[in-house]
Amino acid sequence: MQLTGVYPPLATPFVNQELALDLLAANVRKLAPAGLTGFVALGSNGELPTLTETEKLQVVETVAANAPAGAEIIAGVAYESTRQALAFIEQAAGCGAQAALVLPPAYYKSALTPAVHREFFTVLADQAALPILIYNMPAYTGVNVGPDVAVPLAEHPRVIGMKDSSGNIVQITDIIRQTRQQDFAVLAGSASFLFTSLCVGAAGGVAALANVAPRACVSLFNLYQQGTLAEAQALQYRLMAPNAAVTTRFGIAGLKAAMALCGFHGGEPRHPLTPLPQRQLESVRVILAEARLLFGETSNDAANDAAGG
Amino acid sequence: MQLTGVYPPLATPFVNQELALDLLAANVRKLAPAGLTGFVALGSNGELPTLTETEKLQVVETVAANAPAGAEIIAGVAYESTRQALAFIEQAAGCGAQAALVLPPAYYKSALTPAVHREFFTVLADQAALPILIYNMPAYTGVNVGPDVAVPLAEHPRVIGMKDSSGNIVQITDIIRQTRQQDFAVLAGSASFLFTSLCVGAAGGVAALANVAPRACVSLFNLYQQGTLAEAQALQYRLMAPNAAVTTRFGIAGLKAAMALCGFHGGEPRHPLTPLPQRQLESVRVILAEARLLFGETSNDAANDAAGG
Amino acid sequence: MQLTGVYPPLATPFVNQELALDLLAANVRKLAPAGLTGFVALGSNGELPTLTETEKLQVVETVAANAPAGAEIIAGVAYESTRQALAFIEQAAGCGAQAALVLPPAYYKSALTPAVHREFFTVLADQAALPILIYNMPAYTGVNVGPDVAVPLAEHPRVIGMKDSSGNIVQITDIIRQTRQQDFAVLAGSASFLFTSLCVGAAGGVAALANVAPRACVSLFNLYQQGTLAEAQALQYRLMAPNAAVTTRFGIAGLKAAMALCGFHGGEPRHPLTPLPQRQLESVRVILAEARLLFGETSNDAANDAAGG
Amino acid sequence: MQLTGVYPPLATPFVNQELALDLLAANVRKLAPAGLTGFVALGSNGELPTLTETEKLQVVETVAANAPAGAEIIAGVAYESTRQALAFIEQAAGCGAQAALVLPPAYYKSALTPAVHREFFTVLADQAALPILIYNMPAYTGVNVGPDVAVPLAEHPRVIGMKDSSGNIVQITDIIRQTRQQDFAVLAGSASFLFTSLCVGAAGGVAALANVAPRACVSLFNLYQQGTLAEAQALQYRLMAPNAAVTTRFGIAGLKAAMALCGFHGGEPRHPLTPLPQRQLESVRVILAEARLLFGETSNDAANDAAGG
Repeated sequence: MQLTGVYPPLATPFVNQELALDLLAANVRKLAPAGLTGFVALGSNGELPTLTETEKLQVVETVAANAPAGAEIIAGVAYESTRQALAFIEQAAGCGAQAALVLPPAYYKSALTPAVHREFFTVLADQAALPILIYNMPAYTGVNVGPDVAVPLAEHPRVIGMKDSSGNIVQITDIIRQTRQQDFAVLAGSASFLFTSLCVGAAGGVAALANVAPRACVSLFNLYQQGTLAEAQALQYRLMAPNAAVTTRFGIAGLKAAMALCGFHGGEPRHPLTPLPQRQLESVRVILAEARLLFGETSNDAANDAAGG
Repeated sequence: MQLTGVYPPLATPFVNQELALDLLAANVRKLAPAGLTGFVALGSNGELPTLTETEKLQVVETVAANAPAGAEIIAGVAYESTRQALAFIEQAAGCGAQAALVLPPAYYKSALTPAVHREFFTVLADQAALPILIYNMPAYTGVNVGPDVAVPLAEHPRVIGMKDSSGNIVQITDIIRQTRQQDFAVLAGSASFLFTSLCVGAAGGVAALANVAPRACVSLFNLYQQGTLAEAQALQYRLMAPNAAVTTRFGIAGLKAAMALCGFHGGEPRHPLTPLPQRQLESVRVILAEARLLFGETSNDAANDAAGG
Repeated sequence: MQLTGVYPPLATPFVNQELALDLLAANVRKLAPAGLTGFVALGSNGELPTLTETEKLQVVETVAANAPAGAEIIAGVAYESTRQALAFIEQAAGCGAQAALVLPPAYYKSALTPAVHREFFTVLADQAALPILIYNMPAYTGVNVGPDVAVPLAEHPRVIGMKDSSGNIVQITDIIRQTRQQDFAVLAGSASFLFTSLCVGAAGGVAALANVAPRACVSLFNLYQQGTLAEAQALQYRLMAPNAAVTTRFGIAGLKAAMALCGFHGGEPRHPLTPLPQRQLESVRVILAEARLLFGETSNDAANDAAGG
Repeated sequence: MQLTGVYPPLATPFVNQELALDLLAANVRKLAPAGLTGFVALGSNGELPTLTETEKLQVVETVAANAPAGAEIIAGVAYESTRQALAFIEQAAGCGAQAALVLPPAYYKSALTPAVHREFFTVLADQAALPILIYNMPAYTGVNVGPDVAVPLAEHPRVIGMKDSSGNIVQITDIIRQTRQQDFAVLAGSASFLFTSLCVGAAGGVAALANVAPRACVSLFNLYQQGTLAEAQALQYRLMAPNAAVTTRFGIAGLKAAMALCGFHGGEPRHPLTPLPQRQLESVRVILAEARLLFGETSNDAANDAAGG
């Protein structure tokens, strides 16, 4: 796997609370030409914790079957026990996943020391059917996976990288500094710190906003790669408010609303989460319009960004 | 249901990482004569998050089948979606559970406002196959279910109570104050604040320590009921260190070690948790010995406590 | 010193932002017949952090000069350095303080380990002009002073007690359990957990609400001492909402508004804090009225409480 | 003022716990040729909370008197009341300070809403004798000053900038994005995120590490300004471990130890903080040696960095 560039953590559409695999397939096909390196199925933005075991595998299968040739398929893994994680990874591999993006066990917080997390990921790396990406998501899990866990694991040939959603740029810088001799890719966990993460050596990003504005996210990556930093910085500014709208500010409901406003199939969140109320929906619309993302992007947008945003 | 007195949140024994239902059954039978009101299957101390759907139902079935006649069987429920919670409660009812102890969804923290939690529990109360107990466990979930959620729900006839493991005695006092006209039982979530909770009107407690020292926990409840407060206070003091050893200090591994030291079947925790290292095991032994709990209690102990501890 | 019963952490009245010592004196004289054991000058509720060094000493002097004979005068101490704390305690002693209620240094959080706090309090106990009470106020300082600090310090003859405002009843129980053989008084830091703290052996309380409803607070203490627990519990319930109004819910501004509504001199808070807006002021009035505290208490109230509340 | 480039938040040397102004003066003079834009007196690293009012002014005076011509002198301000802050700023101006770096009031956390902080800083901006820089230091104060406070204040002509020590790069990006049309300088509060902050448009940094390795910090700024980003990134990597050693890892004691190892006068911290124990001192030495900072920098170092580090 390359593990470079931009990956959307795919939203999972529901209709009448039921999994809508056809809408998911349509989203993947629509995202295909945007220049994304691959797709993350079963991330936090995919409402992973609300899916049954059967649904999880259906999602992976659907994404794998509809992704363009060469796209990297990464499956999210969230279990509190080592054996459940191993069992699921084997099944996900059978459904087309090529790597596993694994949350640390996080329920028994005081017992789950860095040493326990190192051991957990080491066993997975030794035994799992897929290579492992560490998934750090402290805002949701309440535990941080820092350099003391990630750096030693980076030496394991089957631990191929990390998605860090902490937004802690000091931690991201420090992990990259200590692992840059390894074959270990650090991916920014949000578009809001994608540019700064690239500046300190990140390989790319897994960005909820790429469900809504994939070309803009890819463009941000490309502008950095091309060394046109002023344009990259300007695009980073432009994406701040839309990114907040689909993440910290309005959450899953905001993400799904924004997808619908940009031509994708958002569907509804699963209860107890509910669709965005009208007033907040209007805020999302305004934010997308101000960022020139409403009604979706055209291929011209990326060109415009490259030409100076 | 009475919802008064003491309930152990049953530990789930594993041998070679496999569910050991025979050991669970033996524990329940051994606990039977201790004066417990009922049993909580699938609590945090039961390593609920590590169990498969099938295992969960086996645990409920085993507990129900081995509990003495009249014992109340409460099943823990932990899902991020309303539909999964409803589906599981129906199955648990079929396996012998008489009430559901339900954690709030907690992953999407910023979206899971008190209003969303109220709606979640209301839908469950309206539609679930079992009456509902709210389970507040902020140390593990990262969200608090406070009076703004619990007090209005107490008016629902199918919301029969709450287990509050926060240890926040101001909150516990306030919830009891505002719900004491309702048919709503507040249960302390740990033996460490069982006495103080009783003092402000709690109906009883769900205490990990009751897996290890059931008679002592029941005795604490009885001493309070009988109005022998000095004895109750003294027993509360005596249980502080053992309680910490099986909860905040050594966690699940400490609980299972203490169970083994007191004649129950602890078994091992599920990975990535591991059994207690030798040095900490020795600490648990010393703590239990100092509290006169080592090798288990005899029926004399409760009598002694009643006679002045 | 007795260190038993109820102490108000005196509010400090300001008029046009200037220290109003005459109003402070009037408050102390009005509080005198209520049965309080003593007075805490310069607590958090006294807006200690907004006072200059000169003002602090004026406050202590005024309280000492206006307190009834035999009242215990305790002065709050909040410094980040040992030498400043020592210097101030000497001055406060000269102004009539009989004990120092000392906050732990809290700014350099990661460096201020329990060992550093133990050393800090030990040096003060060895060298200060007054005996020391530890003041634990984690909600404001961001650091907790737990059993690992308080228990060893309790053996020092000049560390005479602790005010614990954490509301962590497990911690309070644990500290009392481990220090009850010492001459060490644990005081509840709020009326909201005064009753439960007394139940586990606390010596009394320092309660903001005692600025507003001193007789009710003293009555709660007396009812517990007399063993009339049902009445004490009922009074604890009655004081929950008024206590929240003058602490967690409306803060200093709420306290000062409630004082004015109950016949004391609240005055205004110091900027940037501002007086309570009209709508919240109305809430305070309603809360006090519902708790039968509006317009102040008469000496009959305590009698009524004693007679069954 | 330019408010660009690098500023050290000057450590305050103490000898036998007494303020050592001569050592402070010597440090400032030794720092003079390193290319720093100015000096921050009375920052967190200057142990501001341990200084008396008199000492604070002596420090400002000493720094102003020994700084090279044209150096910008910024004085830290930390009070809980508006009036104390105003009074001190006037005195600091008289001692040579040219701007005030003001912490938000932070003690009464629940009352100190963003609206209250906006009002606090607005009054200061309107009335203070010096222009205002906002100082966000959530790790120590427990409160965050975010875009909702900083962005509206940026429109005030007397609010000239902000030091953000949060390390929250999303917040820093967002504040810069929304204030870049204003005359408002955002300064990174640590060398550990200086490079990434510059990448999103920060004007410079206030870095503890500049007490130890001023040329390296200035070099990092210059490399970014010159567009030699690979070199800047490499230097950022090189400074990560030394920066952690003098901040998050070993605190004030680490900073003072590192200063001594690099030819400056560190002196001891004020009690209850104590000098670094031998084993940790050895760690600092190794970290500085590995980063080629031990024994201080020569003017060649900056040249080397510029040439490719």
